[in-house]
Amino acid sequence: MNRTLLKKWFQALAPVGALPEGGVTRLAYSAEEDLMFRSTAGFARQIGLSVTEDCVGNMFLSFPGLEKEPCHIIGSHLDSVPGGGRFDGVAGVLAGLLVMENLRSLDESLPVRVAAFRAEESSLYGLATAGSGVIAGSVNIAHLKNARALSGESLYDAMIRKGYSPGACGLENALDFMELHIEQGRVLFEAKEPLGVVTAIAAPVRLKVTILGRQDHSGATPMDLRKDALCAASEIVLATEAAGHEEKRFATVATVGVANVVPNALNVVPGSVELRIDIRGIDKESIRRTVERVQRAIADIGASRGLSCATETLSSMDPVALAPSMIESLSEAASAAGVSFRRMASGAGHDAMKIAPLVPTGMLFIPCDEGVSHNAAENASLNDIALGAEIMLRSIRLRRSRPAAYPRSTPAGHGRRRLKPS
Amino acid sequence: MNRTLLKKWFQALAPVGALPEGGVTRLAYSAEEDLMFRSTAGFARQIGLSVTEDCVGNMFLSFPGLEKEPCHIIGSHLDSVPGGGRFDGVAGVLAGLLVMENLRSLDESLPVRVAAFRAEESSLYGLATAGSGVIAGSVNIAHLKNARALSGESLYDAMIRKGYSPGACGLENALDFMELHIEQGRVLFEAKEPLGVVTAIAAPVRLKVTILGRQDHSGATPMDLRKDALCAASEIVLATEAAGHEEKRFATVATVGVANVVPNALNVVPGSVELRIDIRGIDKESIRRTVERVQRAIADIGASRGLSCATETLSSMDPVALAPSMIESLSEAASAAGVSFRRMASGAGHDAMKIAPLVPTGMLFIPCDEGVSHNAAENASLNDIALGAEIMLRSIRLRRSRPAAYPRSTPAGHGRRRLKPS
Repeated sequence: MNRTLLKKWFQALAPVGALPEGGVTRLAYSAEEDLMFRSTAGFARQIGLSVTEDCVGNMFLSFPGLEKEPCHIIGSHLDSVPGGGRFDGVAGVLAGLLVMENLRSLDESLPVRVAAFRAEESSLYGLATAGSGVIAGSVNIAHLKNARALSGESLYDAMIRKGYSPGACGLENALDFMELHIEQGRVLFEAKEPLGVVTAIAAPVRLKVTILGRQDHSGATPMDLRKDALCAASEIVLATEAAGHEEKRFATVATVGVANVVPNALNVVPGSVELRIDIRGIDKESIRRTVERVQRAIADIGASRGLSCATETLSSMDPVALAPSMIESLSEAASAAGVSFRRMASGAGHDAMKIAPLVPTGMLFIPCDEGVSHNAAENASLNDIALGAEIMLRSIRLRRSRPAAYPRSTPAGHGRRRLKPS
Repeated sequence: MNRTLLKKWFQALAPVGALPEGGVTRLAYSAEEDLMFRSTAGFARQIGLSVTEDCVGNMFLSFPGLEKEPCHIIGSHLDSVPGGGRFDGVAGVLAGLLVMENLRSLDESLPVRVAAFRAEESSLYGLATAGSGVIAGSVNIAHLKNARALSGESLYDAMIRKGYSPGACGLENALDFMELHIEQGRVLFEAKEPLGVVTAIAAPVRLKVTILGRQDHSGATPMDLRKDALCAASEIVLATEAAGHEEKRFATVATVGVANVVPNALNVVPGSVELRIDIRGIDKESIRRTVERVQRAIADIGASRGLSCATETLSSMDPVALAPSMIESLSEAASAAGVSFRRMASGAGHDAMKIAPLVPTGMLFIPCDEGVSHNAAENASLNDIALGAEIMLRSIRLRRSRPAAYPRSTPAGHGRRRLKPS
């Protein structure tokens, strides 16, 4: 793999949306995301590839003549969160491009195509994996119109503003799909392993809890006359943490990421608190138990403190198992190359989980420093990206040379599991 | 007491800073506070009083000729918090005016003067009881210049903008001081008592706690690898509540009113949390024990979770005991009038606590519905205000007729205790 070229590509992209304080902001359907797509298209053309895009701006980089032929697809996204890092998403697209450049330089004829999806983070609009979701059909026009930025603009409006015509656009002529991505967690980093073969992608159940206490003067209200919403919220936060610990052997995690206190004033007993809880895992039963435990705790805490605690399920998705054919071929490729790796679940969502119901889908993780992502300090190794590209290419060769060992069709419920409507 | 006139006054003030959703916004040194002062001056002139103001706009309403004579002073403030109620402060000023109108109508010659202080809430500037503080000398020019609104304007700038010349302005020719105020708590309301004679004003110790955990992806970070700042913060909130309960027999209260979570995103393990803690009481030892207990809990929680928890003392004031001569004469006046009352501490701060070090100072509380204050739903009874005015007037007569029973000078440490610099 051409590490020199990979480095050049990253250097060329570095200024796009770069912030003075470090990190990058390349929001979905912004001028910065456009520039990421144009620059990447430029890299592709320089190595002789053709560039096409679909009805919402997802981009495909193909060997000329193979644009409509069945191909192995490698892809990820090019947008970032506000103040994000340079590797999240980009690593996967450039790894795909590296595979194609390698095939070009070897003069080897393999049907491979790179996909760059739009709006995976989609931070302003609150609807993640929008580009791959449109391809998968799990994101429809109504979803796009409902996903609104604070400015009032919907994701649909943004697509129209950029000249796209959102509609049905599927993943045509795909043999299978692979995505390389930084782990965004500490597992590979702490284990000092260069690769993870992803077996399943966790899906979140998201709860909003509204705790209604009574707003009182903090100086004038004796302790016994209070209905302090923040105290109740604190018990819920700790109960959620405990529920996550109870299920940790199933890799389920439970987090309260958001707490909004009203009125949030030094001299007022908090009258209400909104919490948002994120519960994820790859074991449906374990997720169910965790959600149940958290909901029971919320009810108990509300009752014992005489407060109202209302819980709303914001979204509830099933975990997505990746295709055994892909897990096996990626693992065998890594073993054959003598690379130390582990099979692991992805806690974060990715474009791959949208594509998984359509074609056999696999994912490779590479470590990121300290597990840090969505942050200016995000860092990963170009060597690991190149290694991942090599393993993906090897896995394609394995699947093509011994198709019987990796049957393309996957057992029901694996690789083709559909997302439940939330 | 002329309840009809009192009602007319409240009705005339009702539109000032009134919000469509209910409640009023009459911020310090705003057009609305000015209008409150001008309207109240108008009421005073209508009953034949003269109007003067000091170097920062505190206003005095006097019987003509007695402007510079030693007087019993009754007063409070006219500003409000954003979206506050119509009684907080205003009730005390109008009660004083009612006393003077009553004396006028009785043709009784008693040296009484009304004071209306500026900027008691001072919500935008974060420096409460600023007008009475300037009079007391506990607020100086540097304090005024440091108290800045989000707009960047300091309280000093605001005074200059309004044409005042902040400097030294004392409380001249004062025999003693009384303030009537709504309780802003639930004690009188729940006990169904019309009056409270205030014995002491609690002062807050305010702490800022900064909890530094580690911001991680909520999906990708196993429970055991987390340093969740919100979980640590939740333990601190509950430890603070417990510390308040431990000391409740001393009427000490402990509240976490503010919690700011960073980044406060559904899919991120909270990296840091800032808490603000308010601990108040009238027993210095109990306050000290509570602060110590909270600080020890913070240190223990930080150590056991491997997080950094830094505590900063934002302010630390001593409780202010009111003058025994005032407590006794107000109590005797209430008893003589056959009014059920209780002696109680004030959990909230008031202008009276600034004036207490200067002259013998007393306070009367009246109930407010459900203890609600700083809120559109704030409500109190005009009958209770009139009753309070009557008891204040009776107490003046008692102090004048039997000065030996209520010696004007108060024991050291009572009524003249100075605020510690924080």
